[in-house]
Formats: sequence, structure tokens, C-alpha cells
Amino acid sequence: MRAEDGFSRDAARSHARAIRRRWERELATLVELPSVSVDPARAGDIRRAAAAAARLIRALGGEASIVPTGGHPLVHGRFQRDRRFPTVTVYNHLDVQPAGEPEWRSDPFRFTRRGDRYVGRGTTDDKGPALAALFGARYAMDRDVPLNVQFLWELEEEIGSPHFEPTIRRHRRGLATDAVIVSDTIWVSRRQPAVPAGLRGLQGFRLTLRTGTTDQHSGTTGGVARNPVAELAELVASMLDARTGRVKIPGFYRDVVPPTRQELAHLRRSGFSVARFKRDHGFRSLRTGDALDAMQRLWCRPTLEVHGIAGGYQGPGVKTVVPPAATAILSCRLVPDMDPATVRRQVRDFVRRHAPDVEVAPEHELAPFRGHTRGLHVDAIRAAVRFAFGRDPVFVREGGSIGAVDSMERVLRAPVHFLGLSLPEHGYHAPNEYFDWRQAEGGILAFAKYFEYVGAQYVAAEHVARERGATR
Amino acid sequence: MRAEDGFSRDAARSHARAIRRRWERELATLVELPSVSVDPARAGDIRRAAAAAARLIRALGGEASIVPTGGHPLVHGRFQRDRRFPTVTVYNHLDVQPAGEPEWRSDPFRFTRRGDRYVGRGTTDDKGPALAALFGARYAMDRDVPLNVQFLWELEEEIGSPHFEPTIRRHRRGLATDAVIVSDTIWVSRRQPAVPAGLRGLQGFRLTLRTGTTDQHSGTTGGVARNPVAELAELVASMLDARTGRVKIPGFYRDVVPPTRQELAHLRRSGFSVARFKRDHGFRSLRTGDALDAMQRLWCRPTLEVHGIAGGYQGPGVKTVVPPAATAILSCRLVPDMDPATVRRQVRDFVRRHAPDVEVAPEHELAPFRGHTRGLHVDAIRAAVRFAFGRDPVFVREGGSIGAVDSMERVLRAPVHFLGLSLPEHGYHAPNEYFDWRQAEGGILAFAKYFEYVGAQYVAAEHVARERGATR
Repeated sequence: MRAEDGFSRDAARSHARAIRRRWERELATLVELPSVSVDPARAGDIRRAAAAAARLIRALGGEASIVPTGGHPLVHGRFQRDRRFPTVTVYNHLDVQPAGEPEWRSDPFRFTRRGDRYVGRGTTDDKGPALAALFGARYAMDRDVPLNVQFLWELEEEIGSPHFEPTIRRHRRGLATDAVIVSDTIWVSRRQPAVPAGLRGLQGFRLTLRTGTTDQHSGTTGGVARNPVAELAELVASMLDARTGRVKIPGFYRDVVPPTRQELAHLRRSGFSVARFKRDHGFRSLRTGDALDAMQRLWCRPTLEVHGIAGGYQGPGVKTVVPPAATAILSCRLVPDMDPATVRRQVRDFVRRHAPDVEVAPEHELAPFRGHTRGLHVDAIRAAVRFAFGRDPVFVREGGSIGAVDSMERVLRAPVHFLGLSLPEHGYHAPNEYFDWRQAEGGILAFAKYFEYVGAQYVAAEHVARERGATR
Repeated sequence: MRAEDGFSRDAARSHARAIRRRWERELATLVELPSVSVDPARAGDIRRAAAAAARLIRALGGEASIVPTGGHPLVHGRFQRDRRFPTVTVYNHLDVQPAGEPEWRSDPFRFTRRGDRYVGRGTTDDKGPALAALFGARYAMDRDVPLNVQFLWELEEEIGSPHFEPTIRRHRRGLATDAVIVSDTIWVSRRQPAVPAGLRGLQGFRLTLRTGTTDQHSGTTGGVARNPVAELAELVASMLDARTGRVKIPGFYRDVVPPTRQELAHLRRSGFSVARFKRDHGFRSLRTGDALDAMQRLWCRPTLEVHGIAGGYQGPGVKTVVPPAATAILSCRLVPDMDPATVRRQVRDFVRRHAPDVEVAPEHELAPFRGHTRGLHVDAIRAAVRFAFGRDPVFVREGGSIGAVDSMERVLRAPVHFLGLSLPEHGYHAPNEYFDWRQAEGGILAFAKYFEYVGAQYVAAEHVARERGATR
């Protein structure tokens, strides 16, 4: 069987349309469980989301269990056909970002349908893609694709996956897999499907300077009192050229691998538009107006962001006090081959030299991921995207971080690939986040085709191996 | 009658001790009304505090009214003896700072007595001193001092007195006075009474930078997105050398009048100790270790403080977003002869040059005040302090700002002097604020003596004038 044979696109599309209402109902159920992993008050909703997800997998004929992790649970599902078939693992996450922004035009935890759009927190990140992959797998299974599919649906992705790696390590045997496919990434433009072959990592920091014990009257003490907010502002300014984004910490860029000529060619074809990026994300101005520079800044270069510098009083009005302490929250996005441990050491050394009484506490860390650009799964993804969306994907990179990716490669010893469905305008982590039926339908088709292709290739490879054995 | 004649210290002290319980009860009543002027939710408590204060003045035989201002009301009281006598006005304020700090060891709005100490928000700033002056005035009135005393008790001092000046302007005629004495200042050390002859002013600013419309995922946009927190941090760092406190805005120090040789001599005698300042205010380290340098930094030099640089998300955990906007809250303390309008222009110009898309919104403003160091009232204050505390005061300056002072000099056309009772260790604006009986008793005696001295001097001056008339 050739890779381009097999499923008919018309049949697959008719099927997707036939199950559309069902698919929407399931998405509505998940969106209306506010699984905000960063908020301890939402632990009950997280548990309910895990239970609903497991029920759904069982309702579709699979097995499912809820795996305790020490934090929020992990949902493990399986469409098991035959032990002799190879296994592919699909990774998604069902936890979501907070949604307190005043800009929401509808309740973020009500599933709101506007034409072909599905609005609500988690619709595109990552509940919609999870359900597209699930229904695509079901379609392939029902057409006797010689493959087993298992699902890992995490509920701690948005907080940096603190328990994911120990949990899959503990269940390593039961999770044995030949490959992993992750559906939690964003295309560059609606018309040009894009697949990342690399992710940025993350290293957070909390810098704290304590100069006193209590709020002090700025008239009575100001001039002699140190101002910890000002000192942290100065420290941040000495680390970062805020206008250009250049990080001034010595050695910070040392291990950055620049993109290859082939990567740059893919970036140029990706359809990235600075104007659209600006509009989609609602920016007034940007650090660059050049598309290739922008893509490299987003995907191939590290960053340092400061999220706030807080002093003492946070109540109404202005209280003219010198606060006794201040905290700056920073995070760095890292690119291959930067090592979080090296960055931690560089930041600590820098702070020790420039502001010896500032304490540095590292926050959650994720290694950057350097992906695969050739092989069976890359071919399968290319075929799947062409089947579903009518174009070959470009291989780019992703600016965000998915903590589980690096863990799965190392612990499950299986290559991790990506087949994402989100679009830039969907508003990952932003108010009025949405997903849409075009991407959902395409996702169902793409996953179905991906599984078919992979199954067919395994069978073909086995056939070749058998033939070779016969002629020896 | 010579200035040193008159009241017997023993009799005055016996009287103060006899009324101590009454004085404490009245302070308790006021402290337990949480008159936090910055908090709109406390408007009812402010009204109740004004009503309680007016009741107390009436109970002591005075007249009192509650004057509407357009904001929180003003309490006006009067001990009127004879229209032909001169009038002295006592200024205090009955509003207080917020008290949300976790370091409070007792409820800040319960009057808590610990031995001779009275703990609670507002005990020393400024309810205790207000009551000491009131009872001191009553004592003088009862001993036929030829003077009328009126009271202005403000309820918006802690928010920069926004309605005080228009209100006293409107009631200018009814408030006619020969002099004003303000009791809202702090000694330099417990053993050495100090009277300020100058106050710092204040000019607040709110700097806002808006670079987008909503929170954006720092992985998806970081590197191309501008970071408004970082840009404001850099702007603040370019305005201020945080370690030394030196303000780098061109022209900022131009109008600063350095202290005279005589002022420096008084500063040296004031009993200021860097070690005690550090301990009293709970600092771990300071910008200077030299006492004379410290006093000049506190009283004779302007400052720029940053109170916080806030971005978007303020909820639990770290949300790795690039915020769409950030706000830095700053305030400058000003010294004679700096002009708030000039400082506003300098800051605007600086920001326009260095960060053109940052918006500058001025917050409340107070002119610095250059006080009087000779004349009848200075002599009276010296005599009063010697009578009550056994030592001559030193004339220093005060680092804080009292908005009403400048307004009263200009509108009432009467000289404003100070007779403060608070000590550094009382914790102005800080948790566990307290007042103590030694300062309360001394305050009652000092105000009694001050009124007696002023009354006697007016009588003597009139006598001299009459004699001159007779011999002509």
C-alpha cells in the first residue's frame, strides 16, 4: 500500500461532519469545567475534567484510567487493537490558563458558539485539539489500521508539568510506545500549515530584595532608606536592554544554535506576517518590523521577560511608603542548545556581582527541545497535513514550551513529533480564546491519515523484513 | 508678666494626671473609628470620627461644627473667650493611614494599652497629639489666658488635603486667626525635643506604558513583543541611581536651598543617631552611615521613590505572559525652594525624551514649606517645650509633608508654627503605631504653656502700645 492510497478524503470529511454535533458537545463539557491548574481553588474542577475525559474515551470504545501524580492527575487512555501492532501515543493537555481578564466578551467557562467558532478558555489550548486527535484515532481504528493508539492527557501543563516526568517514569512499562505525537502547537498562518521542529524552554526566577521589615513613611525615611523596588528595577535594567530585548547577562547567548539555511528557507515560506502578528495579538508596536527577524526572535532566540516588580502596599490609591522588600518575577525562554542549569548559574552570578543582597529563587524550568526533521513520522505528518488541509506543512519552530516533550523523549525513549491545529488568531492564553470547525475537521482528518500512514508503513516494513528473511 | 512666670509646672502636671483616664477614653473612641481616608469604603467611619470629635469639643465647653468640603469633612472647633482677644488656631488631622500590614500584633483599630503605651493606627499620627493640644488649650482657657483658641481637624491629610484649601478659602472670614500651630511632627530623639522649621513637599506620578491590549503568551510572542514592565524599569533606572538615591533628571536639584551654618549646628545637636534610626524603622541597611549626611538626606534634600511597577496578572503563581501595559507609581519629596510645577515639567520632559510613549499622570502635589525661626511664636514654643520637657528644642526640619501648612499661611495670612509630640519609635505610617503618656502629658503642658505665653505677650504688647499712646 502506498502512502497516498488508503482513506478517501470525501469519506473522511463526511464522517467528520456527521459527528460534528457530538464533537461539539464533548468540547462543551470539557470547556465548562474550569480546569485552571495554577489556581488551587480549581482542584475539584480539574478532577471533574479528568473524570469526564476518561468517560469519553470509554464511551468511544477505549480503556481509560486516571493516574494519580502527587499533583493534578493524568488521564491515560488506549484504543488497543492487537499487542503485535505498534503503538503511537498522542499527548494533549486538559488544564487551562486563568481567565480573569476583563476583555472577555463572554463567560470564559461557558462554551459559546459563534457560527463556526467555539469561544471559551481552553478551546484551542488544548481541549479542541485533544478531541480532534481522539476522534481521528477512532476513525482510523474503525477502519482496521494496524496500530494501537494511547492517549496521555496531562492536567499540569500550564504550570510547567511538575509531576509528569516522575509519573511516566513510574509507569514506564505500561506506557511503552513506538512514537509520540503532540497536538499543542500553533500554525504561523491560517493558510500555511506549520509543524514545529523545535520548542523553546523556560527558566523562571523570582528576585527578592529585603531592606527593612515594615512599610516606612517615605517622608520620614526617604533619602536614607534604600528603595528595593528601585534597586530591582535597576538590576532588571542592567540585565536587559528593554527596547531591543537584548539580554546583557554574560554568556547568555553562548549555546544558542542559529537556524540552518534550510530552516531559514522554511521560515520564509511559513506565511508569517508582522502586520498580522501585531493585529492578532493586539500590539500597538513591536521590537521589529522585519518578518524573518521576528520569526527568529520568536523561535530561535532566547528572551528575558519581567512580569512585574511589586513592593509592599497593593491596596487602593497611592500610599507614599518605602516598602521593606520587593520581588521581581522574571522568566527566560530558552532555545537549543541552552541548558536551564547554565542559565540559572549565569543569572545567579550576575546578581551576586551586581546586587549581592538580592536573593534569586529559580521558578519552574523546562529544557528547550530540538525536534526531528526527517524519518517515517515526518513523512506521515506531511502526508496527513496534505490530506486534511491540501498543502505540505513547513517545518518551523515554536516559541512556547511544552514541559512534557523532553520528558517523553527521555523516559519513553520514543521520538516526539508535533501535529498542532491552533491558529495565531485563536488567542492562546488570551481573552476570547477560540477554536474553529475548520481546524477541528482538518484535525480529525489529519490524525486519521497520520495513523493510517504510520500503520501502513509499519506493515510494509515488516513485510520487507519477512521477504528478506524468506530469500536468505 | 514675664514669659517664665505664670503656670506652675507641678499644678499643670497634677491636672494632666487627674484627667489622664478621660484623655485615654477619648483617644480610644477616636482610634476605634477607622478613619482611613484613602479607602472609599471607610467614608462612614470618617463621618463618625468627625462627629465624635465635634461632640468632644462641645463636651469640653467649646463650639464645634462639621464643615462639608466636597470630600471628607473638616471639624472646626472653638474655645471663644472674648472677641477682643487674639486667636490662635491649632491644626491636627484625624484621618489615618491604612493598616493592612501583617506585622500588626494587635488589631490596629482597637485601642490597645500596654503600660504607658497606646497602640493603634492613628495614636501618634495624629489623634493623640490632637487630644493633647485640645486638653492643653482647655487648661489655659480655664486659667483666664487672654486668648481665643480655634481647632481645625482635617480628615484628608493622608491623601494630600485635596479639599482643605478651597474649604478654608470659602470660610476665610470665620476662620480669621493671628497664628496657626500645627501638631503633626516628629522629634529626632526621645531626649531632645525638636521643632521643624521646614517641611518637604510632595509630587506623585503615575507612569503608564501600553504596548498591547491583552495579556500575551510569553512563548508565543516573547522576543518580538515589547515588555512594558521592563521598559518602565529601565526608565526608572535612568531617572534614579537607586543605590545612592541621586536623581538623574536634569535640573532636579537646581532650586534646592542648602541648610545654613546655623541650621547645621542645630542638626548636630538634635540627637539623631543612624543606628537608632535604622533600628526604629527596622532597616537592614541604609544609603548612608553618617548622621549629618542622613539628616540632610531626610530633611534638606529631595527624593524620588518608586512604589511598584505592576504589569497585568496579579493572581496566584507565575503566569508567563507579556502584559499589555504596566504602571509605575513614583513620588518625589521636595524641599525649599523647589516648585511642584517645575518638577512636573522636568519629569514630563525627561520621559518625553527617553520614553516618548509613556504617559505621565501627576498625582497629588504639595509645595515644600520654609518655616519661621524667630519671633513671638518661636519664643513661645521654646518656653513651652522647656516648661513641659525640661529642655530647649532644636530647630530642625521635617521630611514629611503636611498639605495644609502652605494653604493656611497663604489663605489665612497667618504664620504657621509647629509643636509636634511624636517620637521616631512611635512608627508613623507603620504597623504597631503607638503614642505614649509621657508625650501626651508633656503635650498637654506644652500647649497650656504656649497659649499662656502667647496671651501674655499680646497683653504686654497692647499695654506698651497704650502707654505709648498715653505719653504722646
